[in-house]
Amino acid sequence: MQGTPETTTRAAAYTPTDRTIPTRSAQKASYDRDLVHAILDEGYVCHLGFVRDGAPVVLPTLYGRVGETLYVHGSTGSRPLRMTGQADPGLPVCLTVTHVDGLVLARSAFHHSINYRSVVVHGVAHDVTDPAEKLAALDALVDHVVPGRAADSRPANRKELAATAVIRLDLNEVSAKTRTGGVNDEPEDLALPHWAGVLPLRKGYDAPVPEADLAPGTAFPGYLATL
Amino acid sequence: MQGTPETTTRAAAYTPTDRTIPTRSAQKASYDRDLVHAILDEGYVCHLGFVRDGAPVVLPTLYGRVGETLYVHGSTGSRPLRMTGQADPGLPVCLTVTHVDGLVLARSAFHHSINYRSVVVHGVAHDVTDPAEKLAALDALVDHVVPGRAADSRPANRKELAATAVIRLDLNEVSAKTRTGGVNDEPEDLALPHWAGVLPLRKGYDAPVPEADLAPGTAFPGYLATL
Repeated sequence: MQGTPETTTRAAAYTPTDRTIPTRSAQKASYDRDLVHAILDEGYVCHLGFVRDGAPVVLPTLYGRVGETLYVHGSTGSRPLRMTGQADPGLPVCLTVTHVDGLVLARSAFHHSINYRSVVVHGVAHDVTDPAEKLAALDALVDHVVPGRAADSRPANRKELAATAVIRLDLNEVSAKTRTGGVNDEPEDLALPHWAGVLPLRKGYDAPVPEADLAPGTAFPGYLATL
Repeated sequence: MQGTPETTTRAAAYTPTDRTIPTRSAQKASYDRDLVHAILDEGYVCHLGFVRDGAPVVLPTLYGRVGETLYVHGSTGSRPLRMTGQADPGLPVCLTVTHVDGLVLARSAFHHSINYRSVVVHGVAHDVTDPAEKLAALDALVDHVVPGRAADSRPANRKELAATAVIRLDLNEVSAKTRTGGVNDEPEDLALPHWAGVLPLRKGYDAPVPEADLAPGTAFPGYLATL
């Protein structure tokens, strides 16, 4: 921008690696940083994969993003977080976020598909031990569910902080995959009498359900009304 | 039922194992077969975890269910499916399906949560080589996206079948986890002036987007109108 020196030297895209270059559908893959951030920021739940006793485990969990770092939290007694521990050699993980945008109904069974956007992050997760980073991570987790919410809730106290484990995963080895648009039927199938098209999934919220015991005079906050 | 001898001897619940007994929030866990089936049948995409070169990989993919078996398909060139191969020692996997039903906003940051239903399946996936089972699995995959759709589309031909790998995962080591209801704030936080409650996520579809080149006279099918 005019008069604004460019201070960021970060590349606009993540560098592809053996793990993030797909073996198929390469045209759907992207390493664009803004696209990756947008997909991550729209989701509520990630699927966190790790290896336990040689076998894969995939658990759904909340997450938050601060710049180029993702944070996942859980009880200090929970399995994946317990595995990092004092020595903290790090926990190899794969963190995946997926949005289903529509059902793609083709004339042929073979070309049925979904429109989706997903991000896959490979890396090694580490315990967050710095108290300030931990607090910022928990704010990010709450604000990830509803932007603006962290400032409008009672912050975690010492006991709650002690009961919460947070791990961090830096965004280095990252790819996005997306499918958009209509049906890709074979030319010879176009005359078939089957309806074909896309059913878009509806996004949004139904009417909020307030707690029955809200403090008198508590207003419905503006940041929820504009979600 | 009257006059109907009970012929099924299947237990109403899956047997818990070390891997499916949670270390925390045990009250949220269930092994009920009907609940597991209902959660699986409502989803479009699962997150399939496997181990490659010692590291976890989690990929989103479509799936279908036939009784106590899940089917996942993909290109014969895709990574997870390619790993089973001719000898087929089986691929240890963890398959997880999650529905986010609502955002739970507590007065305290710590008690923010989501309402959700998830199923985690542990097991060893195997290639489907029997042609009849493969065809039935592909029908199940299409009908999983939209019930009734498989019968209203052109079945896979020989070339398409050859290009499609299908793996099966039997439902043995399975658990469901759910959170429902309102906010669980601490009693001393109830008087705080923060709005608290649940934002239910809206479910359903927006208006269908038909392909522009449907064969003349193609009607919008009833099984889509009632989705």
